[in-house]
Amino acid sequence: MAKKYVYFFGKGKSEGNTKMKELLGGKGANLAEMARIGVPVPPGFTISTEVCDYYNKHNKKYPAELQKQIDENIAKLEKVMGAKLGDPKNPLLVSVRSGAAASMPGMMDTVLNLGLNEEAVIGFAKKTNNERLAWDAYRRFIDMFSDVVMGVPHEHFEEKMTEVKNKYNAKLDTDLTAEQLKELVAEYKKVFQKHMKKPFPSKAKDQLMAAINAVFGSWNIPRAVTYRRINRITGLLGTAVNVQAMVFGNMGNTSGTGVAFTRNPSTGEEEFYGEFLINAQGEDVVAGIRTPEPISDLKKEWPHIYKELDDIRYKLEKHYKDMQDIEFTIQEGKLFMLQTRTGKRTGLAAVRIAVDMVKEEMITPEQALLRIEGDQLNQLLFPIFDTNAKLESKQVAKGLPAGPGAASGQVVFTAKDAEEWKKTGKKVILVRHETSPEDVAGMDAAVGILTSTGGMTSHAAVVARGWGKCCIAGCSALNINYEKKQITAGDIVIKEGDWISLDGSTGEVMLGDIKSTSSPVIAGVVENNAQAKKHPIYKEFMTIMKWADKYRTLKVRTNADTPKDALAARRLGAEGIGLCRTEHMFFEGERIWAIREFILAQDKEAREQALKKLLPYQRKDFEGIFKEMDGFAVTIRLLDPPLHEFLPNDEAGQAEMAKRMNVSGEKVKELVRAQHELNPMLGHRGCRLSITYPELCVMQTTAIIEAACNMVAKGIKVMPEIMIPLIGSKNEFDFLELIVRETADAIIKKAKKKVKYMVGTMIEIPRAALTADEIAQKAEFFSFGTNDLTQMTFGFSRDDAGVFLPGYIEKKVLSDDPFQTIDQKGVGALVNTAVKLGRQTRKELKCGICGEHGGDPRSVKFCNKAGLNYVSCSPFRVPIARLAAAQAVLEKK
Amino acid sequence: MAKKYVYFFGKGKSEGNTKMKELLGGKGANLAEMARIGVPVPPGFTISTEVCDYYNKHNKKYPAELQKQIDENIAKLEKVMGAKLGDPKNPLLVSVRSGAAASMPGMMDTVLNLGLNEEAVIGFAKKTNNERLAWDAYRRFIDMFSDVVMGVPHEHFEEKMTEVKNKYNAKLDTDLTAEQLKELVAEYKKVFQKHMKKPFPSKAKDQLMAAINAVFGSWNIPRAVTYRRINRITGLLGTAVNVQAMVFGNMGNTSGTGVAFTRNPSTGEEEFYGEFLINAQGEDVVAGIRTPEPISDLKKEWPHIYKELDDIRYKLEKHYKDMQDIEFTIQEGKLFMLQTRTGKRTGLAAVRIAVDMVKEEMITPEQALLRIEGDQLNQLLFPIFDTNAKLESKQVAKGLPAGPGAASGQVVFTAKDAEEWKKTGKKVILVRHETSPEDVAGMDAAVGILTSTGGMTSHAAVVARGWGKCCIAGCSALNINYEKKQITAGDIVIKEGDWISLDGSTGEVMLGDIKSTSSPVIAGVVENNAQAKKHPIYKEFMTIMKWADKYRTLKVRTNADTPKDALAARRLGAEGIGLCRTEHMFFEGERIWAIREFILAQDKEAREQALKKLLPYQRKDFEGIFKEMDGFAVTIRLLDPPLHEFLPNDEAGQAEMAKRMNVSGEKVKELVRAQHELNPMLGHRGCRLSITYPELCVMQTTAIIEAACNMVAKGIKVMPEIMIPLIGSKNEFDFLELIVRETADAIIKKAKKKVKYMVGTMIEIPRAALTADEIAQKAEFFSFGTNDLTQMTFGFSRDDAGVFLPGYIEKKVLSDDPFQTIDQKGVGALVNTAVKLGRQTRKELKCGICGEHGGDPRSVKFCNKAGLNYVSCSPFRVPIARLAAAQAVLEKK
Repeated sequence: MAKKYVYFFGKGKSEGNTKMKELLGGKGANLAEMARIGVPVPPGFTISTEVCDYYNKHNKKYPAELQKQIDENIAKLEKVMGAKLGDPKNPLLVSVRSGAAASMPGMMDTVLNLGLNEEAVIGFAKKTNNERLAWDAYRRFIDMFSDVVMGVPHEHFEEKMTEVKNKYNAKLDTDLTAEQLKELVAEYKKVFQKHMKKPFPSKAKDQLMAAINAVFGSWNIPRAVTYRRINRITGLLGTAVNVQAMVFGNMGNTSGTGVAFTRNPSTGEEEFYGEFLINAQGEDVVAGIRTPEPISDLKKEWPHIYKELDDIRYKLEKHYKDMQDIEFTIQEGKLFMLQTRTGKRTGLAAVRIAVDMVKEEMITPEQALLRIEGDQLNQLLFPIFDTNAKLESKQVAKGLPAGPGAASGQVVFTAKDAEEWKKTGKKVILVRHETSPEDVAGMDAAVGILTSTGGMTSHAAVVARGWGKCCIAGCSALNINYEKKQITAGDIVIKEGDWISLDGSTGEVMLGDIKSTSSPVIAGVVENNAQAKKHPIYKEFMTIMKWADKYRTLKVRTNADTPKDALAARRLGAEGIGLCRTEHMFFEGERIWAIREFILAQDKEAREQALKKLLPYQRKDFEGIFKEMDGFAVTIRLLDPPLHEFLPNDEAGQAEMAKRMNVSGEKVKELVRAQHELNPMLGHRGCRLSITYPELCVMQTTAIIEAACNMVAKGIKVMPEIMIPLIGSKNEFDFLELIVRETADAIIKKAKKKVKYMVGTMIEIPRAALTADEIAQKAEFFSFGTNDLTQMTFGFSRDDAGVFLPGYIEKKVLSDDPFQTIDQKGVGALVNTAVKLGRQTRKELKCGICGEHGGDPRSVKFCNKAGLNYVSCSPFRVPIARLAAAQAVLEKK
Repeated sequence: MAKKYVYFFGKGKSEGNTKMKELLGGKGANLAEMARIGVPVPPGFTISTEVCDYYNKHNKKYPAELQKQIDENIAKLEKVMGAKLGDPKNPLLVSVRSGAAASMPGMMDTVLNLGLNEEAVIGFAKKTNNERLAWDAYRRFIDMFSDVVMGVPHEHFEEKMTEVKNKYNAKLDTDLTAEQLKELVAEYKKVFQKHMKKPFPSKAKDQLMAAINAVFGSWNIPRAVTYRRINRITGLLGTAVNVQAMVFGNMGNTSGTGVAFTRNPSTGEEEFYGEFLINAQGEDVVAGIRTPEPISDLKKEWPHIYKELDDIRYKLEKHYKDMQDIEFTIQEGKLFMLQTRTGKRTGLAAVRIAVDMVKEEMITPEQALLRIEGDQLNQLLFPIFDTNAKLESKQVAKGLPAGPGAASGQVVFTAKDAEEWKKTGKKVILVRHETSPEDVAGMDAAVGILTSTGGMTSHAAVVARGWGKCCIAGCSALNINYEKKQITAGDIVIKEGDWISLDGSTGEVMLGDIKSTSSPVIAGVVENNAQAKKHPIYKEFMTIMKWADKYRTLKVRTNADTPKDALAARRLGAEGIGLCRTEHMFFEGERIWAIREFILAQDKEAREQALKKLLPYQRKDFEGIFKEMDGFAVTIRLLDPPLHEFLPNDEAGQAEMAKRMNVSGEKVKELVRAQHELNPMLGHRGCRLSITYPELCVMQTTAIIEAACNMVAKGIKVMPEIMIPLIGSKNEFDFLELIVRETADAIIKKAKKKVKYMVGTMIEIPRAALTADEIAQKAEFFSFGTNDLTQMTFGFSRDDAGVFLPGYIEKKVLSDDPFQTIDQKGVGALVNTAVKLGRQTRKELKCGICGEHGGDPRSVKFCNKAGLNYVSCSPFRVPIARLAAAQAVLEKK
């Protein structure tokens, strides 16, 4: 038997199906599937990708059997359609389209109305009783065929169109009459003749074979090859060719066309959602010249068609077990489906559809969990802008999406103004070059924060994220002038009091007050609001979370520095604190002066004096956190940032410091200069501080363990995990571990309390991962600080990479921003190495992650695979991490 | 038979030998060896380290057999010496000393004159006919025994000594008469009684056993345990105890003591070199109260003793096959050797002795090569300070040893002054906060350069090293005031014109004009000076290098950016250039303006215009380098530093730039601000620049390949290797490799020349090492940039680590500065991984190293082990690398 190259579809029968994408391409397989399950599609056939492979490997020749199979399928199609290709009286018109297994821009796309010639156009006009339709179809065909198949540039036809329109004072293409179109066709043919030095092909079969050749040939044009190379598409044989009978929605008032979703893609409600146009083609809906009617009107106008379409809607959903995005055409009262595919949806809709479909027993909870993306779940947690309102607004600039949600407010330039304006009932956006600890009250008063410098780990970003507040950082296109109280960005000038809007999920800054919706989930879960708990979204969210917790094995902790954050995180499902940064505790109120005194101190005694002042503050902070995390582990990181972060950088601050600390202004300046570092990321910070000043480690350990003892006395279950940051070698760890244990054990002994604590480290320096076997000799746990680990593994400064990283993504040098999604090949390799080496030494070594990646779904899945015990993320990312952890388990199944 | 615990030595017979260090300790094994080969040593016996182990494991008890063995050995010793321990008439006096296999401060050290008591002291006085000697020995014994063995603090005895001296108006201890010493002995005994609540032990055997107990017990005192922990000394059983008959050099004018070297340790000349004192003990030589006489005088005074000593000198050298450092005592005309050990020597001496000993057929060339350390060889290449002159000078501060050699000159504060002062014949040291490209002429005029900021890779450091010029960088203790033209460092004030001296091998800055010697090797090799080539040092150096080249398998290349450096390196033995940095070429003269124009440019066209101006300069540079390196490979690195390094940082420079480039001062400031990076080490540099601006890569490739074509036309053999820096992923490399190849191939085709070039990368980012298998798919060679790789693997900024790294070394958190010697465990693991992965993909992958480590002997040995093809280092380190490469091969044998 000859090898099968051509597959027919239509009229309830198909030789292919949806699983044959490799062979028939995505489009061909899906058309076959619809036809197979009895959905009316215009019949046709698909020439397989194997032919493409053969054609390109055999110097543009086809397998011997092909022509016969094409002829047979044309005959079959002619029979089904009751029309003949090229027949002068009753011509069959077809479309020819490419379609590979993966989407592939750059290839020859579509030729419509193939089969028309000087005679057939007349027959078609008579058959449809619509002369204008026929000549319009013909001139479109010549244009498309010449351009797409033969390479005659479209602009030459465009010129002729303009000439003819001018000649007849026609404003739109549609204003041209049949006669005028006839004249245009003649002109089009001249264009073809002039460029191709031969007349436009009149034989329908010649037209068809030329189109098929063009599709297969286009697989290897440079643009397509480049696209595949850039997108690393390999292993495909080629493209398939789909030849399908034409249907026309513009055959008069019993024809039409439309697009629809099987459920509401915006809210997820179980309703038919879409729109249609009478006497129109698909292009007309897109062009937006006429306003389509809602799909519900179809019910009134053509109830039987609506009924048929509605039945198909149920049939497709039931078949594909998901909400579908469909296209249809009605030709003289007859319904044809042109496409079905899984419909895109908002987060709200994704959650509702998933939960509803489980209720409807269409899918299982496992499937429901796999359907929801992290970003979609995120949309439930924060205010989001109304899509249309956002589209209509003017974008000013784009920065880093540093804090989630959507916020609109009036611009102010100082923290003090933010507080004062808020008191008068105003909503404000605080705009600063960068924020500092002194701005915290103003940041709290603002609905959103916008900075022009600093990265995802800048002060503004870290504080905002902890609060779940909208923040855009490092928006370098903004020129902020404090004196003039205005922002300029190109031509745009924004003054104090002007309204702007921030989209914290994209980093976009827009003009005006854009409408947004708030989140009942946060009100219900975090604020414990009884009314919000009655909201369906709240309930659906809780259902999804319940299912997720059932399947996941990875624990989810949170990064939290205050009792307030700890409480919110616990309500959002956090099972402990994976990262409590102690440095933020140093900024508030009087504390900053104690740490400055520490930096200024000339000897150990003076440093200890300064630290003594900090001790009670730190102890109290830890007591509050331990209380909120009763029964859960709390990982506390010893001081990490370089000391210069605690010094004032501006003249005024330095003058205040000099006055307050009773030293000369010159002395303060000298101190700031001496503490300056060329590369602070790689400077005197982390464990290096405590190795230089062991008294710092002693004070912090004292605060932690005394707080633990005090809380144990109140019946609270405390599990402190003391984490030494920035370790690069066993010796560093051992040096400080000894100090921690000696200090802690003495306090516990004196207090006569039972406090179990652990001492471990962050793995955030490549060398630590490479020597993890040695470090694990004394370290009881590892927490991967993948922010810093990514910086050092790539040699990327997160604060500076904004200059070149976007170009890297654009040029596909990197597929993802490695600070958002963990780089599995490089950084991930170090994580795997560290886990393996660490557990070689200490079988029960507890491993977690506390970088930003802990809240990124793909990274969470990686962590699950790497065998970590937990991920830790900012409080408002905890639900996403829970979902991703469940998906990690389900995807492995 | 009972286990042997005690080993006798003396009188030409020994039960031990030099190989038994584990069992007898270093001292015991060496005393046994000397006795064994017939060198006269005071006889004695060693109690083995096994006893120490037993003693400490059995609650301070000894093996049953021990006492008997000790008694037998005492008897033997008494017989040999013709005296009896504790005998009132003819007492045998002994010393008791500890001695483990490794040097170990902290343990009990030495007790001399053991065996004296109230009766024996009188016997000893009579026997020696020297009452004063006897009582002095006795009072010393009581002091030492009480302090060292019993723990009675020495200061109490010191007090009594002072009291007695005051009483008799004695100025020195030696002024006390026998009678007065007798009185002191009585006081000493009271001190003992008071502290120990018992009388001073009078029985000699009790004294001996107490001393032995004390030695063994001291193995586990905290100071010794800590020392072993810090220095990672493990696997030792314990210390041995050496009991040896006392000899006295202070028994009158036929007695004496001295120290000597078997050859001149300063010049290496074959001459007996040392000094002696008549009627003195070892301590007196050290105390420096009396001035010793040169050893040659001994020949005149006691010819027979000199003859005996000179014979021993030959004997020991012949036996140990190396120059020895010896101690001897003459007791009443009889010579005793107290110690022999390998003598420390200068670089000059090391080379001369090694070469001479080969000539004398005492050692083989292989052994000679293994005898010379890299630092010693280095001393031959640069001027060095006279040791005594340096010791006498006042040290001001210490910075980083950034450029080699020794330099003395008058302080100037500007490059212009340096040039002008030089013209008047003055030697100047240029002192700057930091240097910049505009200072180059002044740096050239100065004999040495001193900066207060910047690290080992700062401008000053890199330029100076390339020239082999003395430079100290990052000397942060100096407060440089340009206005006042003075330096302050603590109390020291140095003004313009004052003389200072820089030791480039230690980083020490000293006051005054310290005498130094210049290097005939450099004059002969680099400057091709005929006179210098007649100097013996030149010849010896060449001999060593010839031997080294015979054995080494690792190639040695150089880091050179100019034809001048390339020539120097080639003369010093470089076999190609491993790193030609193109950025330094951008600074000279007009070029800096072209690169600034490039940075200022708003679009690609303007950037290309600017680059066009640079092209001829770069091409000419490369032509010069290719010419000097005829027949050798030249690895050229594309632009690496961030662009802001090319912008002026000071007001004046910015104003000049604004004027010259016809833009506003504000614009220049804004540009500088926009280019500022928080962590430039991890910023927009290396390949990232060329990915953002591919035209940069095109220009540099064009310059390289056009230069290559031009040189090929002149018959020069050119082998360019184009190196893309800072690669972290395969995609980055592939992106630029394509541009390089397309550009290069087009030029070669057009020029119709045969030019073979390679394209490869630096492995300097951890991720590159981790994904080396992928990168090697296109990369033809790897060059390890271990400077940056160390920075990123450790997370240490080399520019900032000066604050904490010294503390790390001091606290033994790190054993070595990882920027000087490669960290084999972390950085080395990445090098090994990259070589392994890279060669998995590309078997013939050429691998080299071009970081500073390429000139560090230990690192060179690591590179040999890692299977690299070559090391590349600055020109003046090439000889050291050649030597180390040979040693790597010989050590493996």
